[in-house]
Amino acid sequence: MALTKSPYRGTRDFFPAQMRLRNYIFQKMSEVSELFAYEPYDGPILEEVDLYLAKSGEELINEQIYSFTDRGDRKVAIRPEMTPTVARMAAQVHREIAKPIRWYAIPNLMRYEKPQRGRLREFWQYNADIFGAGELGDVEIVQLAVEILRSFGATDAHFEILVNDRRVVDSIFKKLLRLDDPSAQKLYKVVDRVKKVTPEALAKLTGEILSDGGSAELFSEYIRLTSFTDLASFLERNGLSDDAREFLTFSKNLASFGLSAYVKYDPSIVRGLDYYTGIVFEIFDKHPDNRRALAGGGAYANLLQIFNEQPLAGVGFGLGEVPLTEFLTSHKLLRDFSRPRIDVLVSYQVAGAEKTALVLAGDLRARGLKTEVIFGETKTKKVFAQSERKHVSSIVFIGEEELRAGQVQVKNLETKATLSIDQRDVETIARTLKGQT
Amino acid sequence: MALTKSPYRGTRDFFPAQMRLRNYIFQKMSEVSELFAYEPYDGPILEEVDLYLAKSGEELINEQIYSFTDRGDRKVAIRPEMTPTVARMAAQVHREIAKPIRWYAIPNLMRYEKPQRGRLREFWQYNADIFGAGELGDVEIVQLAVEILRSFGATDAHFEILVNDRRVVDSIFKKLLRLDDPSAQKLYKVVDRVKKVTPEALAKLTGEILSDGGSAELFSEYIRLTSFTDLASFLERNGLSDDAREFLTFSKNLASFGLSAYVKYDPSIVRGLDYYTGIVFEIFDKHPDNRRALAGGGAYANLLQIFNEQPLAGVGFGLGEVPLTEFLTSHKLLRDFSRPRIDVLVSYQVAGAEKTALVLAGDLRARGLKTEVIFGETKTKKVFAQSERKHVSSIVFIGEEELRAGQVQVKNLETKATLSIDQRDVETIARTLKGQT
Repeated sequence: MALTKSPYRGTRDFFPAQMRLRNYIFQKMSEVSELFAYEPYDGPILEEVDLYLAKSGEELINEQIYSFTDRGDRKVAIRPEMTPTVARMAAQVHREIAKPIRWYAIPNLMRYEKPQRGRLREFWQYNADIFGAGELGDVEIVQLAVEILRSFGATDAHFEILVNDRRVVDSIFKKLLRLDDPSAQKLYKVVDRVKKVTPEALAKLTGEILSDGGSAELFSEYIRLTSFTDLASFLERNGLSDDAREFLTFSKNLASFGLSAYVKYDPSIVRGLDYYTGIVFEIFDKHPDNRRALAGGGAYANLLQIFNEQPLAGVGFGLGEVPLTEFLTSHKLLRDFSRPRIDVLVSYQVAGAEKTALVLAGDLRARGLKTEVIFGETKTKKVFAQSERKHVSSIVFIGEEELRAGQVQVKNLETKATLSIDQRDVETIARTLKGQT
Repeated sequence: MALTKSPYRGTRDFFPAQMRLRNYIFQKMSEVSELFAYEPYDGPILEEVDLYLAKSGEELINEQIYSFTDRGDRKVAIRPEMTPTVARMAAQVHREIAKPIRWYAIPNLMRYEKPQRGRLREFWQYNADIFGAGELGDVEIVQLAVEILRSFGATDAHFEILVNDRRVVDSIFKKLLRLDDPSAQKLYKVVDRVKKVTPEALAKLTGEILSDGGSAELFSEYIRLTSFTDLASFLERNGLSDDAREFLTFSKNLASFGLSAYVKYDPSIVRGLDYYTGIVFEIFDKHPDNRRALAGGGAYANLLQIFNEQPLAGVGFGLGEVPLTEFLTSHKLLRDFSRPRIDVLVSYQVAGAEKTALVLAGDLRARGLKTEVIFGETKTKKVFAQSERKHVSSIVFIGEEELRAGQVQVKNLETKATLSIDQRDVETIARTLKGQT
C-alpha cells in the first residue's frame, strides 16, 4: 500500500509560499526584539517530563503533552511551551550575568489537541522575557509586544492589550471577598471563563463560591469595571488602594510612554492558574470575526524556585504564529508570498553556451544577485513563460549571435530595456542587472 | 528534590552567545541558497513511523529513532533526517509545479545516539535538493555546497569534496566482479568502511565476498584509484567506459565551472546502502585533527516510489551544523559571538528623567537603532562598566544639567566625541548616533 503524502495530523508542511511567510514573520519578530536589545536563545525540543510536572501540575501532562519514555528509561516530552525551558536556562546562569536579562526565542512547540481553526498540534510561538528589571520591565514588555505588532503594519485600530494585576485580584478575592486559598483558586477559574459564559451561568458559578449576597454583589461590581479610573475608585471605596499601587504606577507609565491607545484595563484577564504574580495581559484582535487572544503574558516572581534557586522576578509574553497569521490575514496586512523573487534568470538558446551561462551565474551570485540558470537550450518564448511564474527582475539571453560575438543580452523586465554586453565584462553586466547604469 | 538545570542528554541549551553563532550560520546558509534561487521549505517535527520504515528499513528505526505511539494509537517519530519529508512533500506537488524544483531547509533532527564529540541527539542539518534538473543539477548542487562553505571564508585549503558514482560502482561490482545483488550489497558495506579499517582487515572482509583471486585483484586495483583519469583508464581497460559516461561528463563539467580545486575522485565514497543511484559525494575537513565528513549527498532516481508516484530524479545533500561548527572553529573562521551588539545605551543619572529616556529609546528604535535602556538612575561610571559587557557604539546620558536644559548628552565610544543635543531633536540625535554628522 502506498504511504500517505499528508503530514501528521495537526501539523503542517511548509511549502515555499508558506515558508516565505513564516520567515517574514520570524524576521520581523527578531528585528524588533534586537531593536529592544533582547538577545536570542533556544532550548532543546525534548525536556524531561519532571520539568513540566513541577510547573503545571498533572492536567497539562496528562491531556496535552507529547510524552514518552526513551530507550534509557527517562520520561521525556516534546516541549508544549517555552517558559519551563527559559526558567531552567536562567537558573543556570542568573547568578553570573548582569541584570536585567532580556531574552527572546521562536521555538516550535507541540500539544496534543483536537485540531481546529487556530489550534494545531505543532506551532511556533515567539517568547520574550525580561528578568530582574523591576517595574519598568513590565512597561518595556508591553512596548515590545506593541512594536512587534506595529512592525507588521497593525495599529490600535486592529488590536488591544487587556491588562490586569494578580496582586489586585488577590487582594480583592482574599481581603474583600474573604476567600480562602481553595475558594480563591476556584474563583480564578471562573473569572478566566467570564467571556465564554452567559451572565446566568456566571451568576450560578460564582454563587457556588460566594455564598453571601454581599460578596456576590462586590464581585459583580468588580467584574464590570472597565477602566483604571473605575478600578482605582472601587479599590479606594473598599480600602484596598495600597494593594494597587504598583498596578496604578504601571498604568501611569503606559500613559507616559504613549501606550494608552493600545491598553485597556480588563478585570476578567487573570491567566488562569498560571504562575503569574503581578501584571497579566492578553492581546486581542479587534476584528469582529476574530475576537480571540493573539498573545498573553505577565509578571512572575518564583519561576526559579523549582531549581532551588533564589527568586528572580521577571515578566514575559508569548505570541503564537498561528493566531498572528490569522490576525494579519483578517486585516489584510500580509503581502503575497506565493512567488519567489529572483534578480536574474540566466538562459541560453544554443548548444555550447552552457559553460558561459553557469560561469556567469556564479559571477553574478558573487556580486549578490539571486540568480537562477535555466538548464538546457531554451527558446526565448519559453524563458519568458518561465519568468512569469516568479518575480523576476531581469533575464540574460545567450543566443547564437551572442555566443559568436562573445556577448550576452540583458533584458530588464521592469524598464523593458535591452542591452548587449561583453560576456567577460561581469562588472557591467552586474551593474546593469542591479539597475545602476 | 530540586529539578535538574541541565538539558536532556545529548541536547543543548543555546544561550545568546551560542544562538548568535547558530543564527549566523543559518543566515549564511539561507543567503547562499537564495542566491542560487533555492526556495525555503520545512516539514513537521513528527512524522508517521511508516515513512521511515519504507525508506530506511528496520535498522534505523530500531536503533536510532525517537519513536512512540500517540494517544490516538498512531506510531510516530521525531524526524531523524529530512529526506523522507522532502520526498513526501515533493510527492504532493511535483505534478503541478514547474521543474526543476529547488528547495532548501534547516530542520532540527533527533537521533538516539550515544553522545560524543560531533554527535549529539538533537542537531540541525542544512538540506538542499534539486528535482527534475538533469545532469547539470549534479553540478549545481556541488557548486552550492562549495559556495556555502566559501561564504564562511573556507577555501580549498580547508575542505575537499570526494566524489564517486553509484552507476560506476554498480557496473564494476556486477559486470566486472560478477557479483549478485546480495554480494554486491555486502561489498558496498565493506567499501563504506574502507577508511576505518586496516589493509589486513580489508583483505579479510573482501576475501569473504570475492572468492576468486582475479576479482580480489581487480577490486584492490579499483579501491586504490585516485583520479578521474585513473578511473577512466581502468574502466577502458575493462570495457566499461560506457557505464561511466555520465560520471565523466560530470567531472568535465566540474572542471569547466571552476570546481576542480575542490573536488577529488574517491572510489571509497558510496554512501552505504542509501537510496542513491547516481553521483555521491562527501565533504571532508582537511584539518589533520578533524578528518571527518561535514556533509554528504548524491543523486537519486526513485524517492517518490513509496508514494506510488512517477519517478522524479533529484540530487541533494545535507550539512550538519555540529560538524560545520567544529570545522569553522578548527580553521579559526568564526568571529567572537559572546557579546551582543548594541547601537545605543540610553541612561539617566537623575530621578525624573526616566520618561525622557524611555520615550527617546522608542524614537531611536523607530529609526532602526538597537537601543537598550538602563532602568533606574545610574552613575556615569556604572554606565561605562555596563557598556563594556557588550559591543556598544554610543551612550546617551541624561544628567541633572541635561534634564534642566532639555538636552541629552551623546557619547560615541569609538570616536570618543561628546555632543549635547536638544532632547526633542530626535533626528539630529539619531544621525549623530549613526555617525552621519
